Amino acid sequence: MADPIEFWFDFVSPYGYVASERIEAIAAKAGRKLVWRPFLLGAVFKVSGAQPLTQLPPMKSDYSKHDFERSARQFGIPYKMPPGFPAATVGAARCFYWAEIRDATKAANFVHRCYRAYFADGRDISKVDIVADIAAEAGFKRDEALAGMNDQVIKDRLKAVVDEAIQRGIFGSPFIIVGAEKFWGADRLDQVAEWLRRGGW
Amino acid sequence: MADPIEFWFDFVSPYGYVASERIEAIAAKAGRKLVWRPFLLGAVFKVSGAQPLTQLPPMKSDYSKHDFERSARQFGIPYKMPPGFPAATVGAARCFYWAEIRDATKAANFVHRCYRAYFADGRDISKVDIVADIAAEAGFKRDEALAGMNDQVIKDRLKAVVDEAIQRGIFGSPFIIVGAEKFWGADRLDQVAEWLRRGGW
Repeated sequence: MADPIEFWFDFVSPYGYVASERIEAIAAKAGRKLVWRPFLLGAVFKVSGAQPLTQLPPMKSDYSKHDFERSARQFGIPYKMPPGFPAATVGAARCFYWAEIRDATKAANFVHRCYRAYFADGRDISKVDIVADIAAEAGFKRDEALAGMNDQVIKDRLKAVVDEAIQRGIFGSPFIIVGAEKFWGADRLDQVAEWLRRGGW
Repeated sequence: MADPIEFWFDFVSPYGYVASERIEAIAAKAGRKLVWRPFLLGAVFKVSGAQPLTQLPPMKSDYSKHDFERSARQFGIPYKMPPGFPAATVGAARCFYWAEIRDATKAANFVHRCYRAYFADGRDISKVDIVADIAAEAGFKRDEALAGMNDQVIKDRLKAVVDEAIQRGIFGSPFIIVGAEKFWGADRLDQVAEWLRRGGW
């Protein structure tokens, strides 16, 4: 059985969003299962000492803002820097793990809707009420999603995922893992596709 | 007249090396002139607050070391982490600007030979004697290259280039500039090629 493609991301990551719009086609072409793994960059940054993009010096943050937009536009992906960036995404991540247990297909739908809500429509995904709305749009029951985000089992599940990210050396978003190989960044998607096509090198 | 492709790099940059092996084919395909612009990352890092790759936390530096090698291997480019990395590259950069005034084609040859000397053959390019050897291998006179690296005009030229890099917001290596568009990183080469092909987007 071929290794699945693990797609590690934070819902607040612009490059995660851009990559999330392309990774399914890459997985399908390679005949690999895709595993969505939202985690919390903030927790990882505490360990790695990295800074959020908005706290970088101006020469880097100016480049990044332009680059987000250009990278999305290259593939016709709608993108607008959300007001109040960066948003807290603990609720969105918890909602995904609640959803995944129930229906993996709808949970993938939730990933796309949540990302687009934030990066295309400027909705405030730091609010659990908004996240529950998005869960409903993805086909779940709104009140169940709200309760799910508050369930200790789900909270523990996300905590375990974040611990796994730190333990496996996942320090950015997106992080794409195939077997023992890790690829960091939306600009590595073509390299990942080539890796899968050639069976490595 | 179409904008040239400016290729900004430091001779100590592994990603600069990998990209330097591919950029000429991209420029040729797009019918663009290629301008080599070695500069000193250390001077830029003082302004941007960035850290050299070797001083990053282990989870990042371990990834980077693996990724250098994998990125080179993808394109069949010989690569071996040089002993004593990172080397000081002020002599190599000065030698390039001395060479460029004399013969741009040979100067481009010097770029490739100097990069390969360091990243494929493990030669210590921090030493002016070694840099002069490489200049001789690229078709220049060894003693003239040695004198050139010590020429105040050349020293001032490199200083002006570094100041220009800071002023233009060039904070990493490689940095590829086409007109008003800046692209950071070896993993952006395909995006640069696509940008040139489509005339932007």
